[in-house]
Amino acid sequence: MKKEIRLSGSGGQGLILAGIILSEAAIMDSKKVLQSQSYGPESRGGSSRSDVIISDETIYFPRAVNLDILLSLTQEAADKFLCNLKSNGYLIYDSSVIKVNPIDGEAIGIPFAEIAIKKFKTAIVTNIISLTFLCKVTEIVSIHSLKSAIKARVKEKFIDLNMKAVRQGIKLAEKYLSERG
Amino acid sequence: MKKEIRLSGSGGQGLILAGIILSEAAIMDSKKVLQSQSYGPESRGGSSRSDVIISDETIYFPRAVNLDILLSLTQEAADKFLCNLKSNGYLIYDSSVIKVNPIDGEAIGIPFAEIAIKKFKTAIVTNIISLTFLCKVTEIVSIHSLKSAIKARVKEKFIDLNMKAVRQGIKLAEKYLSERG
Repeated sequence: MKKEIRLSGSGGQGLILAGIILSEAAIMDSKKVLQSQSYGPESRGGSSRSDVIISDETIYFPRAVNLDILLSLTQEAADKFLCNLKSNGYLIYDSSVIKVNPIDGEAIGIPFAEIAIKKFKTAIVTNIISLTFLCKVTEIVSIHSLKSAIKARVKEKFIDLNMKAVRQGIKLAEKYLSERG
Repeated sequence: MKKEIRLSGSGGQGLILAGIILSEAAIMDSKKVLQSQSYGPESRGGSSRSDVIISDETIYFPRAVNLDILLSLTQEAADKFLCNLKSNGYLIYDSSVIKVNPIDGEAIGIPFAEIAIKKFKTAIVTNIISLTFLCKVTEIVSIHSLKSAIKARVKEKFIDLNMKAVRQGIKLAEKYLSERG
C-alpha cells in the first residue's frame, strides 16, 4: 500500500499543519511517510500545497541531494548524511555526542546538547540553539525572521524559553566567528 | 543563490519543527523554499532528517506526482493540481468556493468553509474539518491517531475547538458514506 495525498488551497489555510498532522497520524499507525511542502509568494495568497506519501514500505526519495549545510545532532545522522555534503559545504555538529571524521569542508563542533542542559536544565531547546547558531554563522536567514518564525510556531508557554535559546545560539555563533577571525 | 540545508539527528529532537521554522523564516526574508522530511521507524529513535532548500528563484521539484487523493480548498488549487490526480483518484473539494469540472474519478464536494463559519464562527478550523473528512472517507489513517497527532501539534488553547472540528468532520463523512451507500 502506497498512497500519495496532496492538501491544496491558499496560504494561511493551515494546510502545512494539516500535512504534518496527517504524517504524524500515519506514523502512529506504523506507516512510513514522506512529507513535503513548497513555500513561496503563493503561500501568501495564491495556491499552496502540502504533499504526503504514506506507505507500508520504505519510501525512496529520488531527489539528488547536494547539501550546502548539514546540521547533525547524532553520530548516526552524521555518518549517514556526510556523503551528501558538498566538499566545500558546512558541517555543524553536536560535539557533546559526535566524534567526526575529518572532512574537506568547514566542520564546526559545538556541544549543543550539553549547553542546553547546563543553561536551561533541558535538552529540549537543543534544536533552537543549534538552528540559531546555523543561521547566524551561515547567514542563511535573518535572525529577525528566525525569531518571528519561532514565535509563530512554538507553543505559547515555551516562547520565552525559546527566545532565551535563540540568544544562547547567537552568543555561541558570535564567539565562534570572533575566534575564527 | 540556492542553498540546500539538512537538519539531522534522532527522532524527538525537534528537527521537523526546526525545519519548518527555518522555512518560514526564509519566506519572511522573501525567499522561495521547498521543505521535506521523512518519517518512519527512524523517527522513533534512529536518524531523522528535515531538508530545506532556500532559493531566490522558483524551485522545481523533480518528483513525479501521481496523486491518490487530492484535497482542494480553492478553485485555483483545484485547477492547478487536478492534472496530478490519478484517473481513479479521490478529489475532495470545498464546494463553498469551487465549481469543479467533471473528472473521471470520484469527486466529493463539501462546503467545508461554510460549515466551519456556520458551526464555529471561524474559518480557521476548515483545515481540520476537511482533513478529518478525508481520513474518515478514505481510511488513510485511523481517527484515533489523527486525534493524537492533532493534540500533539495544535496550540493548547485551540485543542478543544479542534476536537469539535474533528467531530464535525466525522459527522460529515458518515453522512456522505451513508448517502453513497
